[in-house]
Amino acid sequence: MALIVQKYGGTSVANPERIKEVARRVARWQAQGHQVVVVVSAMSGETNRLLGLAKQISASPDPRELDVIAATGEQVTIGLLCIALHEMGRKARSYTGAQVRVLTDSAFTKARILAIDERNIRADLDSGNVVVVAGFQGVDEGGNITTLGRGGSDTTGVALAAALKADECQIYTDVDGVYTTDPRIVPEARRLNHVTFEEMLEMASLGSKVLQIRSVEFAGKYKVRLRVLSSFEEEGKEGPGTLITFEDDIKMEQPIISGIAFNRDEAKLTVLGVPDRPGIAYQILGPIAEANIDVDMIVQNVGHDGTTDFSFTVPRGEFQRALTILNDQIKPHIGAREAVGDNRICKVSVVGVGMRSHVGIASRMFRTLAEEGINIQMISTSEIKISVVLDEKYLELAVRVLHKAFELDEIRA
Amino acid sequence: MALIVQKYGGTSVANPERIKEVARRVARWQAQGHQVVVVVSAMSGETNRLLGLAKQISASPDPRELDVIAATGEQVTIGLLCIALHEMGRKARSYTGAQVRVLTDSAFTKARILAIDERNIRADLDSGNVVVVAGFQGVDEGGNITTLGRGGSDTTGVALAAALKADECQIYTDVDGVYTTDPRIVPEARRLNHVTFEEMLEMASLGSKVLQIRSVEFAGKYKVRLRVLSSFEEEGKEGPGTLITFEDDIKMEQPIISGIAFNRDEAKLTVLGVPDRPGIAYQILGPIAEANIDVDMIVQNVGHDGTTDFSFTVPRGEFQRALTILNDQIKPHIGAREAVGDNRICKVSVVGVGMRSHVGIASRMFRTLAEEGINIQMISTSEIKISVVLDEKYLELAVRVLHKAFELDEIRA
Repeated sequence: MALIVQKYGGTSVANPERIKEVARRVARWQAQGHQVVVVVSAMSGETNRLLGLAKQISASPDPRELDVIAATGEQVTIGLLCIALHEMGRKARSYTGAQVRVLTDSAFTKARILAIDERNIRADLDSGNVVVVAGFQGVDEGGNITTLGRGGSDTTGVALAAALKADECQIYTDVDGVYTTDPRIVPEARRLNHVTFEEMLEMASLGSKVLQIRSVEFAGKYKVRLRVLSSFEEEGKEGPGTLITFEDDIKMEQPIISGIAFNRDEAKLTVLGVPDRPGIAYQILGPIAEANIDVDMIVQNVGHDGTTDFSFTVPRGEFQRALTILNDQIKPHIGAREAVGDNRICKVSVVGVGMRSHVGIASRMFRTLAEEGINIQMISTSEIKISVVLDEKYLELAVRVLHKAFELDEIRA
Repeated sequence: MALIVQKYGGTSVANPERIKEVARRVARWQAQGHQVVVVVSAMSGETNRLLGLAKQISASPDPRELDVIAATGEQVTIGLLCIALHEMGRKARSYTGAQVRVLTDSAFTKARILAIDERNIRADLDSGNVVVVAGFQGVDEGGNITTLGRGGSDTTGVALAAALKADECQIYTDVDGVYTTDPRIVPEARRLNHVTFEEMLEMASLGSKVLQIRSVEFAGKYKVRLRVLSSFEEEGKEGPGTLITFEDDIKMEQPIISGIAFNRDEAKLTVLGVPDRPGIAYQILGPIAEANIDVDMIVQNVGHDGTTDFSFTVPRGEFQRALTILNDQIKPHIGAREAVGDNRICKVSVVGVGMRSHVGIASRMFRTLAEEGINIQMISTSEIKISVVLDEKYLELAVRVLHKAFELDEIRA
């Protein structure tokens, strides 16, 4: 008997029929003798509908109240799923984030989980219940409702699995695993049977969208066994999905590159003519961080003539706000020459733990892009990935040629 | 400066535009120096939509989970109203029932309020906030979400006014006060400037629908000054509504009859040939109460030949369930001859504190109905009302002729 945490996203619980299908799947796991905790998202479209109501009233609604509104989406789903489980003769109890108590900080709309009280859940499991928990939400010390931000239901699932020391955390979604790249762009893309946490972290942050980045960090930190599966496959015909592994676990020869990730939801900002002195990076990024704008890539090249250029990327939705801060606060303060930006960019990355021990990955990547006449605007590298920023229009072409250049359509996973 | 509790029903907060109008009204009261607590219902149609989702999954959904789902309706409204108040430069904070803490018993879908912790609300009021509370909902000792049943937002408003010792509890609705009867049936119906608590209690329980009965009981018990007003009147042109008064307050000559109430949401059940012995009423109604079916009128006539007939009315939606209980459990148990029922009935009542000191009200009522050839099926009386059960088809006719017979279109309120 295992303790399994299953997380179902919005498309998996899109309507009462789909919710009944989830209940059948959950009931089957429980009937096999497992203890099952289910984390659910809002029915697809519901969060947008709720936030849309708020936007009809205010262009910049209060974050605390936004969370009060948004948290209702998951609350509806937990009740509906419990009712569906009861219909199948299963005992089930629902929990909101506050009821669990998923304690978070007070950063409304993007709160972080601080602690989870798993005692009530465990007691309910031990008395034969399926426990159904609202993803995406928590409560702060003051009793205020908080949400974890988009995709936060994955994080709830992994955090619960960690708190309960679950045997596996299964993330059900509308794809049957992690692919070498997006099959809509490259039809030859293949499902990976396993991928390392580090690769998944890079894939997620680079826009693979299968798993929310914070949930992968969480899983890595607490050594949660994480599996991505499809909730749209027929009963009895489910594939194994993709298991997210710790690198130590991997026995076989690892392919050099696991996948090509990409993200078109970024914008690039550059401060030109920055005085090249210590502390300048902090002076630029401090006000951006204070405005709660996430920064992804940061590139600063060696300076000349006592000045340098400083570039970074932010989510595309924050582009105008970040540019305004650069122009109004940062440029005059540090005495830079100019602040410019471009929100028609994309980021394309090759990811793989295998690249550590292999030279020549970067050069193969850059050569491949050059052969297609694709200009590289920014480059950033980590141990297991190389990312480039390109003009948005080259996204599909770049992904396709890189997928082929690294023979991702040929390697068995 | 007064402390005002205002309650807005579903039609008053039906969409973002209406919510902004409510915010304007609330802001105006606060700008006049009052402290304002606002209790809101779900946007109209929302509770039905939510319960409809549950019904698509189960014909008899678990009440605990139904409450989890239904409570989200009001939770959305409180967030939206706070955002609208912020847009007007007002400070505002929302509270769910659990956050207030509106402590209730655990009778899911029809919970009763046990206690209200008003401390946080008072602190927020003292620091200049409008406090916006989700009506209709609470939390039990175990931290489970409960709802008070349909119309429960009125009860929340009155209970909060009692806990806060508010100067007035204003119930905003889509009518501008309490009328002598439903103007859709009798165009000559008039708005009453005031009505006693006891009359209102009878009017509410008899289906006037302006106020939920439990809220009126609450107001009477805790001496809350209660006023019914329209939220649909233009700014600056609002009428005074109807003030619900304590009988002691009334100085002027009271009209004999205040109004004609009616209810077509009832069904009648009769047990025929009941052995006429002590304890029989309990043996019949005990199982009905255990099944959580509300009983309204109860009529037992003097017996003959050692047997009697026992009749009572229940909400129409419970008719089949009550009849099944009568036939399966009660009839064989007590040795009655037959159990029959009729769900095509209505109840019509004349209500007025003045009837206590006046004879002849009953006879005038019965004569008026007889002159129209309307057969009376059941009669029940209290100190301030006389109710009759009639064939449903006579409802409008009976209300009209009684309104005229008691000269309700002529008396100044």
